[in-house]
Amino acid sequence: MELKMDREALTAFLLRDFGQVAADFAVERADADGVTLRLRVAERHLRPGGTVSGPSMFALADVALYLAILSRLGPVALAVTTNASMDFMRKPAAGQDVRAEARLLKLGRVLAVGDALLYSEGVTEPVARASMTYSIPPGAVEGR
Amino acid sequence: MELKMDREALTAFLLRDFGQVAADFAVERADADGVTLRLRVAERHLRPGGTVSGPSMFALADVALYLAILSRLGPVALAVTTNASMDFMRKPAAGQDVRAEARLLKLGRVLAVGDALLYSEGVTEPVARASMTYSIPPGAVEGR
Amino acid sequence: MELKMDREALTAFLLRDFGQVAADFAVERADADGVTLRLRVAERHLRPGGTVSGPSMFALADVALYLAILSRLGPVALAVTTNASMDFMRKPAAGQDVRAEARLLKLGRVLAVGDALLYSEGVTEPVARASMTYSIPPGAVEGR
Amino acid sequence: MELKMDREALTAFLLRDFGQVAADFAVERADADGVTLRLRVAERHLRPGGTVSGPSMFALADVALYLAILSRLGPVALAVTTNASMDFMRKPAAGQDVRAEARLLKLGRVLAVGDALLYSEGVTEPVARASMTYSIPPGAVEGR
Repeated sequence: MELKMDREALTAFLLRDFGQVAADFAVERADADGVTLRLRVAERHLRPGGTVSGPSMFALADVALYLAILSRLGPVALAVTTNASMDFMRKPAAGQDVRAEARLLKLGRVLAVGDALLYSEGVTEPVARASMTYSIPPGAVEGR
Repeated sequence: MELKMDREALTAFLLRDFGQVAADFAVERADADGVTLRLRVAERHLRPGGTVSGPSMFALADVALYLAILSRLGPVALAVTTNASMDFMRKPAAGQDVRAEARLLKLGRVLAVGDALLYSEGVTEPVARASMTYSIPPGAVEGR
Repeated sequence: MELKMDREALTAFLLRDFGQVAADFAVERADADGVTLRLRVAERHLRPGGTVSGPSMFALADVALYLAILSRLGPVALAVTTNASMDFMRKPAAGQDVRAEARLLKLGRVLAVGDALLYSEGVTEPVARASMTYSIPPGAVEGR
Repeated sequence: MELKMDREALTAFLLRDFGQVAADFAVERADADGVTLRLRVAERHLRPGGTVSGPSMFALADVALYLAILSRLGPVALAVTTNASMDFMRKPAAGQDVRAEARLLKLGRVLAVGDALLYSEGVTEPVARASMTYSIPPGAVEGR
């Protein structure tokens, strides 16, 4: 499927529509395979002990997959997260950025499904896994 | 099972060990059936449009179940979230607090499992559902 | 919401439309709170060691929630399972029936969400927990 | 990590320890990247309409990841499924085999986590996605 928004377009979208959290994220890749999104880890993303918090990793995975949907549908869509499932597998390195490698597995008329692996800088194995489902507003996917 | 920490003890624990986010939460109930935790919704919990964000609801459910485990084990434990599954079912009312009704379904030697329904003030039906698994550190559950 | 199919109607539906597996299940309750469904455990539901298998518990939870949806929509609907999340918490008693207590948490125009606790005869605590999402065909929910 | 059981060893294990269902499955691949397992679809795996049933796809994903764990630990282990999350994304082709491509994401002392994509013969895109967690018996993972 054709890409309607590339890395630059997604970055501009984040700044305009998600001003409050846009500074937290950097879009590193957006192509036919999916989206790579980096969480620029700051004090507010940590929990006691210096580990990146669960809600911050949830936000990273959710925004990454939301952007992956937008990259296909364009900025008109307003997808809503309906289901999220995450496995927290390893402790992220203290104070290091976390990177989500997200891929879209389905983009249907009504639902979109994708998953992501989350990597902590300096740790080879993924620290978390996420799969998410989004409800797509009527008419957003042409010709389906 | 006996309750080792009540509402007051859990509130004091939050203030001492989770100073950064303690102000976000109010423990409303802690008894044999579980824990009720309120998210005092502020600007930082909202996403564009005024809805309480997914990560904020994730944090609420996670803290509520963490406290439910602590209420049984006492403050020595350091449970780690290993799995989370959430369904976002309805839009929370704009700017209203969200309340988690959490119950522990299993407290084993190695794993604890619980679930929660999340309610938005002024909305009768639950806005979200969460189930979470925690890894329990060795020795935390006596006699098991 | 009004109940369009009661215990007898759901039982008749199972026999007619799910002949292949209808003998596995007994509808014990269908009311405003949800559905209780019993899995009549037989050799084919067990895995080595005599425990009720994961797929059998999945089937029990799935059919219980499917019937809970039908009880509200009537026999015209053809809901499709889109997401399932299960926690297996305790070993079911060998060779004993398993009972699902299912409740519908949301019945929207497009999606239905529910959860269930599974009990093994003779074990007080639930052996498993399930939450499931169904896609509802267009037009099945009147006036929404 | 070294592979302790290859395709032939896993096939022999299935026949010996899972005699009841061994005929349903064919191990097509077992290497450092994971396991490919085929469900030989028969009448008993279908639901009304000819589609492969949810429980059958659950069983396929569960056995595939169980074998992926065994391939690393050897035949002594007795891992227990503790959590399963699945997304059913597309209708499998009627009467066609389903293939799981499973990979292990974590093999810890206490928990193992993996995921799988399920493909229906003749359908390019995956029909389902699964992620599963297993509890590992004490002592099964050497030197950890």
